[in-house]
Amino acid sequence: MPAVTLAELNGADKSGFVAMLGDIYEHAPWVAERAWARRPFANVSSLHEAMMAAVRAAPAQERLALINGHPDLAGKAALAGTMTRDSKAEQASAGLDRLSAEEFAHFHELNNAYRQKFAFPFIICVRRHSKDSILRQFEHRLGHDASTEHETALAEIFRIAALRLDARIKTTERLKVHGHLSTHILDTHGGKPAGGVSLELLELSERADPRLIVSGVTNDDGRTAEPLIDERPLPIGRYELRFHIGAYFARLRVALANPPFLELIPIQFAIAEPEGHYHVPLLVTPWSYTTYRGS
Amino acid sequence: MPAVTLAELNGADKSGFVAMLGDIYEHAPWVAERAWARRPFANVSSLHEAMMAAVRAAPAQERLALINGHPDLAGKAALAGTMTRDSKAEQASAGLDRLSAEEFAHFHELNNAYRQKFAFPFIICVRRHSKDSILRQFEHRLGHDASTEHETALAEIFRIAALRLDARIKTTERLKVHGHLSTHILDTHGGKPAGGVSLELLELSERADPRLIVSGVTNDDGRTAEPLIDERPLPIGRYELRFHIGAYFARLRVALANPPFLELIPIQFAIAEPEGHYHVPLLVTPWSYTTYRGS
Amino acid sequence: MPAVTLAELNGADKSGFVAMLGDIYEHAPWVAERAWARRPFANVSSLHEAMMAAVRAAPAQERLALINGHPDLAGKAALAGTMTRDSKAEQASAGLDRLSAEEFAHFHELNNAYRQKFAFPFIICVRRHSKDSILRQFEHRLGHDASTEHETALAEIFRIAALRLDARIKTTERLKVHGHLSTHILDTHGGKPAGGVSLELLELSERADPRLIVSGVTNDDGRTAEPLIDERPLPIGRYELRFHIGAYFARLRVALANPPFLELIPIQFAIAEPEGHYHVPLLVTPWSYTTYRGS
Amino acid sequence: MPAVTLAELNGADKSGFVAMLGDIYEHAPWVAERAWARRPFANVSSLHEAMMAAVRAAPAQERLALINGHPDLAGKAALAGTMTRDSKAEQASAGLDRLSAEEFAHFHELNNAYRQKFAFPFIICVRRHSKDSILRQFEHRLGHDASTEHETALAEIFRIAALRLDARIKTTERLKVHGHLSTHILDTHGGKPAGGVSLELLELSERADPRLIVSGVTNDDGRTAEPLIDERPLPIGRYELRFHIGAYFARLRVALANPPFLELIPIQFAIAEPEGHYHVPLLVTPWSYTTYRGS
Repeated sequence: MPAVTLAELNGADKSGFVAMLGDIYEHAPWVAERAWARRPFANVSSLHEAMMAAVRAAPAQERLALINGHPDLAGKAALAGTMTRDSKAEQASAGLDRLSAEEFAHFHELNNAYRQKFAFPFIICVRRHSKDSILRQFEHRLGHDASTEHETALAEIFRIAALRLDARIKTTERLKVHGHLSTHILDTHGGKPAGGVSLELLELSERADPRLIVSGVTNDDGRTAEPLIDERPLPIGRYELRFHIGAYFARLRVALANPPFLELIPIQFAIAEPEGHYHVPLLVTPWSYTTYRGS
Repeated sequence: MPAVTLAELNGADKSGFVAMLGDIYEHAPWVAERAWARRPFANVSSLHEAMMAAVRAAPAQERLALINGHPDLAGKAALAGTMTRDSKAEQASAGLDRLSAEEFAHFHELNNAYRQKFAFPFIICVRRHSKDSILRQFEHRLGHDASTEHETALAEIFRIAALRLDARIKTTERLKVHGHLSTHILDTHGGKPAGGVSLELLELSERADPRLIVSGVTNDDGRTAEPLIDERPLPIGRYELRFHIGAYFARLRVALANPPFLELIPIQFAIAEPEGHYHVPLLVTPWSYTTYRGS
Repeated sequence: MPAVTLAELNGADKSGFVAMLGDIYEHAPWVAERAWARRPFANVSSLHEAMMAAVRAAPAQERLALINGHPDLAGKAALAGTMTRDSKAEQASAGLDRLSAEEFAHFHELNNAYRQKFAFPFIICVRRHSKDSILRQFEHRLGHDASTEHETALAEIFRIAALRLDARIKTTERLKVHGHLSTHILDTHGGKPAGGVSLELLELSERADPRLIVSGVTNDDGRTAEPLIDERPLPIGRYELRFHIGAYFARLRVALANPPFLELIPIQFAIAEPEGHYHVPLLVTPWSYTTYRGS
Repeated sequence: MPAVTLAELNGADKSGFVAMLGDIYEHAPWVAERAWARRPFANVSSLHEAMMAAVRAAPAQERLALINGHPDLAGKAALAGTMTRDSKAEQASAGLDRLSAEEFAHFHELNNAYRQKFAFPFIICVRRHSKDSILRQFEHRLGHDASTEHETALAEIFRIAALRLDARIKTTERLKVHGHLSTHILDTHGGKPAGGVSLELLELSERADPRLIVSGVTNDDGRTAEPLIDERPLPIGRYELRFHIGAYFARLRVALANPPFLELIPIQFAIAEPEGHYHVPLLVTPWSYTTYRGS
């Protein structure tokens, strides 16, 4: 679906409007249809509000149908290839398209338990989660009562819609749906940024090996050319940053022990706020280092 | 062999003396026998000097026989169970008694290459090394010339003897053959030592999984009851200290993110001086930490 | 008054006992006299308890007389030279013997206000306070009611007595009446303790210039030969430690800016627990430093 | 003198050009006049180059006259009010218009010694220096030989000219003649920037009391609204940043000692590169802090 401007949306008739936004809510073009009446929209935020208001104002049965229109996580729809393109991309973002047979069976079991208790599918904005975090949410939300879980499902649908709107609408005044993860290495031995340091970011899992997210090399300002994660929510989960600092000091011909006291510096940390700004810097000498959640 | 005092040694006749120290040098009781003439010994250091002097004063052929009296590292003597008790314990300390078939083959190959080049076995004071470090030394020393390697072999034999003497002689004025590794956790969020923190020390290897050396829990002073390594040389190698800090702050009911920003703190460092004092402390809050080589 | 052992005290008759301890409580030998009945004393702590019990068991009038037997702080007794030797030394410890005319007038005014409200002198264990802290206590306690202040005065008398007992009795099992202030400098540029660094400890005051308490030079282990303060309570107050780190790195011929980024490092901190252990270390490179309350 | 654009300069005839830039070199409109021939100038940097080339190409006598056209530092011209407006403002920037009688006498003496040795006035780009640094330069340069000092005087004149050009020419592609000093406070107790912290920057002097440069309060991002120093060279010299951190943690109702361990945090540092970027941040808890030269 191509991106559109607010001007195009505000100028469209109802059918044109629905053509442009009918798929923001999964299998529920009526949400766009009813929001159309509230145009013009000064910004994407008021458009998002109007669509959420249309959902909230809908009869209970329609809201339930909206919830039921969503596919199971890593479920049969995925296998059968009948998911919407957006759902497919979203589930892939958390690696749900690359499950082992064991993991698939585990999801299947949780999906069944959830459907049996609540009679609708488990909905979660997967872009905001790692696989471990989705499983924790699954187990946690299975303990809710039906009314809480109905509300939670709608809240997650709104988060999914917000991310889809953000990707669809061309505008500078964007929704706050993205997070930011960056690092910086300061060489406090030399009193300057540490350039040329190789580093990796890995996602950690209780059940699987670390998964490489991104690798890079710091520039003269001690930063990576791009943020480590940007322009998307930060998946809730545990991570490890690895800094190859031994090679850096060896290149500078600094006096080192043999083998050098510090070679690889691993820093494990968790992301809890997908829309947050996380800065995880390193202050380092050949004999010491400091890290912290910066801003 | 039971421990003896300097008084007992100084009071012994030659055969008694050799009975007590004849095995300090592998299959070479003549070293003790010749050192006997230099008694009395004011301290273990002068005894060690006297025995080294006896080796240095011996004819070249005898020195070579001494070298040749040593078993191969992880070699046939180990398989056949014909090593001296001391050699056996020493090789076990670096895990040479638990080699995989592949590792055994690698050692065998290196032993042969070394014997072929120098015509005597590769001798190293294994208590001062990890398995990785032994292999690095092996490869490094294969590049030496014969005369350098002859000197190196004797130097390693003297280190082995020093450790055996230190274990054999009861005295307060000991040889400096041991190192010391300790840690300390300071909670700079609360301004006090962090007690009750679980931690582990692991040996890292390029070829194998991390191997647990010791685990413990910090006391009210933020220290382990015993040093992490003490009363032995620190094996040259790479290590990881793991601090379970998430559980500590959770117990204190400090406000934390969910999941907490810091849960497990891994610190990787290398030991390069087997007789050194290494203090690797942690200054920590729920959002930051600092580590360094202390003293 | 010479120091005595517990054995001498336990073996003394009543008059001998009073001769040895009659001055522990100011102008109140009856406290020692009545505690005598409780001998023998297993340690100085039970002796201290027995003397406090004697005070608590005394009639109200006697307790009031005990309080009234104490001199004003920086008062007429000091001018007239009629204070006991102990009181004189104690008041000198906080600099109350070196007051400016203005300060003297201020104390005089506070003494009068206190006496007018409570009809007894202001008593405080001055060894536990700096001049600033005494003034803050004076102002704070003037707001108390009479009964609270009566209790506070006795509690301070007991603290004074504990310190006098600790100085009088020769024993290894001492009262916990002393604090400890130390520092340590670690050069995280070189990975070793920073020896040969000049440092000063100053007492800060809101009303006066900083006052030098002690200066020193670190040894090879990065510590001062003696703790900065030891064998006395740490006076509650604000302090500054000054580390002359520029000269240290210049001596090591480390590459530095001109002028060097760090030359003098001042660290201001407060002591709140006179009987506490304060360790205020410095981790330092030519471009960075860290300090903290250690243990 | 009003600011001009490169277009205006490139379009001007010779007399117009000299009217606009004739005072960039002190009492030497001929520099602008000769640079005019090299127009058009693509940017201010090539204009600066052209003017410097004109000076370098001038006969020795003219270059000497240029040097002699400069006033003494804090000299008679200042007293008599006969300095150019630019020189007056420049000397004021380092406090040379507020000298004590003693300081004035000291400058007078140094000026005379310098003139006596070199037969021209001591020239220095004062905006790049504090008063202490100017005096140190004075003493240092008195030790030079005549030829070195002739070159140094011209280099300083070029620096003065660069700053004047930067102020005169309206352009986005500016000369690198300014530095930048900033700070940032991160509360590693709470894991967030420390907002609402009062701070001051003072210039330190060996001869005088600290002089307040700027004070401020950090915003929600832990920074001051404006950099501490910006849009000018950073004067070489020693500084102290003072952070009032006690009040910050007290406001957050964090558990603190009484008095709090940390109240005022003073950080002393030197600036050595007037065109450098200095970032001097603070990582702080109620019990610890870290500072460093950042970037």
